[in-house]
Amino acid sequence: MADLTKVVLDAMGGDHAPGEMVKGAVDAVSRRQDIKVFLVGQEAVVREELDKYTYPKEQIEVVGATEKIETAEPPVMAIRKKKDSSIVVGMNLVKKGEADAFVSAGNSGAVLVGGQLIVGRIKGVERPPLAPLIPTEKGVSLLIDCGANVDARPSHLVQFAKMGSVYMENVMGIAKPRVAIVNIGAEEEKGNALVKETFPLLKACKDIHFIGSIEAREIPHGMADVIVCEAFVGNVILKLYEGVGAALTSQIKKGMMSTLRSKIGALLVKPALKQTLKSFDVSEHGGAPLLGLNGLVVKTHGSSSAKEVSNSIIQCVTFKEQKINEKIREHIQKEEKQKDETTS
Amino acid sequence: MADLTKVVLDAMGGDHAPGEMVKGAVDAVSRRQDIKVFLVGQEAVVREELDKYTYPKEQIEVVGATEKIETAEPPVMAIRKKKDSSIVVGMNLVKKGEADAFVSAGNSGAVLVGGQLIVGRIKGVERPPLAPLIPTEKGVSLLIDCGANVDARPSHLVQFAKMGSVYMENVMGIAKPRVAIVNIGAEEEKGNALVKETFPLLKACKDIHFIGSIEAREIPHGMADVIVCEAFVGNVILKLYEGVGAALTSQIKKGMMSTLRSKIGALLVKPALKQTLKSFDVSEHGGAPLLGLNGLVVKTHGSSSAKEVSNSIIQCVTFKEQKINEKIREHIQKEEKQKDETTS
Repeated sequence: MADLTKVVLDAMGGDHAPGEMVKGAVDAVSRRQDIKVFLVGQEAVVREELDKYTYPKEQIEVVGATEKIETAEPPVMAIRKKKDSSIVVGMNLVKKGEADAFVSAGNSGAVLVGGQLIVGRIKGVERPPLAPLIPTEKGVSLLIDCGANVDARPSHLVQFAKMGSVYMENVMGIAKPRVAIVNIGAEEEKGNALVKETFPLLKACKDIHFIGSIEAREIPHGMADVIVCEAFVGNVILKLYEGVGAALTSQIKKGMMSTLRSKIGALLVKPALKQTLKSFDVSEHGGAPLLGLNGLVVKTHGSSSAKEVSNSIIQCVTFKEQKINEKIREHIQKEEKQKDETTS
Repeated sequence: MADLTKVVLDAMGGDHAPGEMVKGAVDAVSRRQDIKVFLVGQEAVVREELDKYTYPKEQIEVVGATEKIETAEPPVMAIRKKKDSSIVVGMNLVKKGEADAFVSAGNSGAVLVGGQLIVGRIKGVERPPLAPLIPTEKGVSLLIDCGANVDARPSHLVQFAKMGSVYMENVMGIAKPRVAIVNIGAEEEKGNALVKETFPLLKACKDIHFIGSIEAREIPHGMADVIVCEAFVGNVILKLYEGVGAALTSQIKKGMMSTLRSKIGALLVKPALKQTLKSFDVSEHGGAPLLGLNGLVVKTHGSSSAKEVSNSIIQCVTFKEQKINEKIREHIQKEEKQKDETTS
């Protein structure tokens, strides 16, 4: 089959590995004939899980990796030392071109470091950002960077804006995506040192549609398509989105169970409410790609269930079809070339 | 009356000034006999609004101030030049001891700058933080700093932790308040440069109950009483809280109106739902005090309605009774003295 998308799944990464990982792989191949999953991990353990299911055998292949990188392990050391870990073995399959994408719910730091050291950066990309889609009232926005590069410099943020625009235009089909920088006020002179320095650089970019600052309050209302920020802030945004949503949902459910009247009402609103909460659930939108690499690397939530894993695997088909990293490469290299021409 | 709390209200500040400000003042004095409000602003305009209401005349006094500081004005310049603005005139009343507290919904920067330049910092306090209470599943937590000092240094964050502990213990009556620093992972080695440098300093503090890092996801679950962060991050947290809450609430309401079945259910759950949403509404918890000053300065939300203004005024009674800034002064000065003794 010519259009087969080959996805490596880290069977050992995440809070519910290997059980939910294997289940997610089985679910993905059961839903899609155009996907092949390489399940990388400790062979005996993975096979034991896999034996619980019936699935198209030719669509899943187990690849042995004896070591496992733990959640709290310092990432650089882990990637360097554990050559036979599921992350290192899996990423090498992408590097060698034997697979199209690598998906992991494991140690974020190790996935980010591995992405850069093993799969490698596109020439000209300073720092590859992690870029998840977050739900808004109007659809989704891209949050970039949400965890890869703390203490970033202005030039990094400018590249995030460009890569994010390429992503939203090509993967999500949004013409002239609106780019905004996260700030603590709407005025240009507001902000911390990083934002103040980055603002005029973004304003001067001709290849993006920069609309200025965005306050955190406006993010859920979908006021921008590409939301640029430094990784620490992005991580806080992503996790608070999740936390406020979860807490509010649990309080609402508890509140509805407080009286007989509201209990009856709860039964009636349940289907509509479920749909709404689902549309505002961060985990519904699959994994976050690490942009700007010489291959696809997708990080999914540490607490991913089989459904999220399956969604993240299937998402790789779109990333592959839309050639997202190839388009980022073209964009960055066209720019580098123009710079060379003007300076020579 | 010996126990009268005298509160200066900036009648000209905020999106809905002077209308909602004046209404809020009237509401506060109608609810409480132990409060006197000084309404500072353009006299004719303020009196015109005030004439719409019946209220105990001796509890509201209008103080004229011809100038107004606009929302987008650069704060330092505004405070220096506009000597007859409502903020400058109002803060001077607190400085001179003619009033106990100053409340404003106006230009945040100007309130912060005015607080430091006019009311003045307590000796030993490096940077006064803005510290609002935010709702959680378990009650409330103090978010400190949420907008006053961007690009803060580790020593500032350590003082925030101490001032926040004094606040939660005295104002909220929580013994041994749990202090946590906002971080992007639970492990000690995680974080940006500021957090990595601050973490061991907090760990070494004997006068606070430091419990380590808190991820943004855990904040709404009430995992800490005092949440320490740099102002940019704090501002993002506060505003996103508000934004996600508002967006989710509006989506839920819309969802419930989608079918006849859910519409009927909505009628039944409405009272319970309203109560829940109220308990999770940031604006229900009054204004945010600027801690560590020689007097009380409270910033309320720019979009404050009369109800929020009234709550913020009434809140000043507790701040006064609990002598929050006096207790911070004692704490900081005891520490300074110990430092002197050990170094001499």
